[in-house]
Order: sequence, then C-alpha cells, then structure tokens
Amino acid sequence: MASKMASCIFCKIIKGEIPCFKLFESDKTLAFLDINPLSKGHALVIPKIHGEKLTDIPDDHLTEILPIAKKLVVATGAQEYNILQNNGRGAHQEVGHVHFHMIPKPNAQEGLGIGWPQQKTDMDKLKAYFEEIKSKV
Amino acid sequence: MASKMASCIFCKIIKGEIPCFKLFESDKTLAFLDINPLSKGHALVIPKIHGEKLTDIPDDHLTEILPIAKKLVVATGAQEYNILQNNGRGAHQEVGHVHFHMIPKPNAQEGLGIGWPQQKTDMDKLKAYFEEIKSKV
Repeated sequence: MASKMASCIFCKIIKGEIPCFKLFESDKTLAFLDINPLSKGHALVIPKIHGEKLTDIPDDHLTEILPIAKKLVVATGAQEYNILQNNGRGAHQEVGHVHFHMIPKPNAQEGLGIGWPQQKTDMDKLKAYFEEIKSKV
Repeated sequence: MASKMASCIFCKIIKGEIPCFKLFESDKTLAFLDINPLSKGHALVIPKIHGEKLTDIPDDHLTEILPIAKKLVVATGAQEYNILQNNGRGAHQEVGHVHFHMIPKPNAQEGLGIGWPQQKTDMDKLKAYFEEIKSKV
C-alpha cells in the first residue's frame, strides 16, 4: 500500500505536490475539477485515504462523499448529470484511487455516454440467485 | 410531491405494495436486486424518502448509501463494478426516485457500457471556469 500511495497521482494532489482546481476540502474528502472533462463542470470527489476500490475505503470516509457531490451539482448548476464511480480497469477505472465523478449531461454529445445491455429477465433464475446471496448481505 | 410519490414504483416497493428481492433495509435506505439486470448481481440502493434527483435528498439520507453499496459488492463477490446514479431523462434516469446502481462488470459484454467523449483540455478556459464557480461551492 505504501508504495502504491507514493506513486498515486491523487495522493500527490491531496498532499499538494500536484496542483488542482480545488472546489472543496474537509478532513476526509477533497473535490476538484477533472482536467480532462467530459463536459463543463465535470468534477471529482475523492476520499483522502488511499484505496483502489470502494471496498477499500472505511465507511466513515464514505459518508461525506454524496453530500459533497450535491454541493458540486448546485455550484455548477447542472440540471441533468451522472454520478459515477468505476472499480477496476475492466470497469473503466483509470486512476487507482477511489474517485466519484460528477458529470453534467448538458446534451446528447457531451457528458457520460451510457450503454445499457439489459439482459432478458429470467425471474426463476433471479429468484434462485436472490436466495443464494440474500444471507450474505 | 404527494401525487408523484403515489405513482412512484420505488415508493410502492418501499411500502411493500410491490414485492422486491430485498437485500438490505434500514430506517432510511433500501437495497434490492434490479429485475432488469445488466449483469448478475446488479442491485439498487435507494433512499426511502422520495426525491427525483440527488439534490432533492437531504444529506442525512445519503450518508448510508455508499456503505450499503459496499455490502452489495462484498455479497455478490464482484471484482470489477460500477456505482452509477443518473439524474434526468437525458442522463439515462428511468425511474424518478433517486437510485444508485451497483453493477458488476464481469466482462466486456455484460454490465455497464461506458462512452467517454473526452474534450480537448483548454487549461485557460478551465482556469477561468474554476474562478467562476469556486466561490459557489
């Protein structure tokens, strides 16, 4: 973990070693503009604690994230927008430090593109799967 | 608001008028399997309070959402996954009650499809925009 943190670009931003367009900061959380935006106002909210995926972040470092994302929505004036957090390269994660995107969707061309390959619902299969996992939550 | 709640499918699920594959419930939050999954384990976490967009939900009804999404990741055993919350029809929101998707991404075909129409970064423009909004957060 220590070596991953040393090379983590978001940890460097948190420490002030790399500048950012800082929008909000608290003890546990930092928010700043994405410098490769999908749309005007595209911003990131990150926990200051290093962790690659959502499950690596303790609960008490997650509670502020969505209230801060709300602040960004209000500040940017976004009317339609997506909140997105990717986990793993296959799921489009590019920086290995948990980050939540707030991406305004001003029109069809700008902002997040979404593909929705919905499966045919098989209720029997879904019920069987539910029985399998419900006790694990 | 009252009439929207009366016809809201998620409010009906919360009240037990429509069944769901319930995975977790607390005073403020409900989690259940999506019945039109993009991949096995696709689940939703919703605040019990009715609101269409993220900004409609009070902060204290948002703090549990991500810790509960974490529980779903662990229970489903998802290794790669996306957390997504859509706001507005143009941003792919289909039910007008705030909901967070936890969508496992087991392979390139299943799970969320992501389009990333990155803009050419114009640092001067970005800096000007930052100066414009930073005081609003």
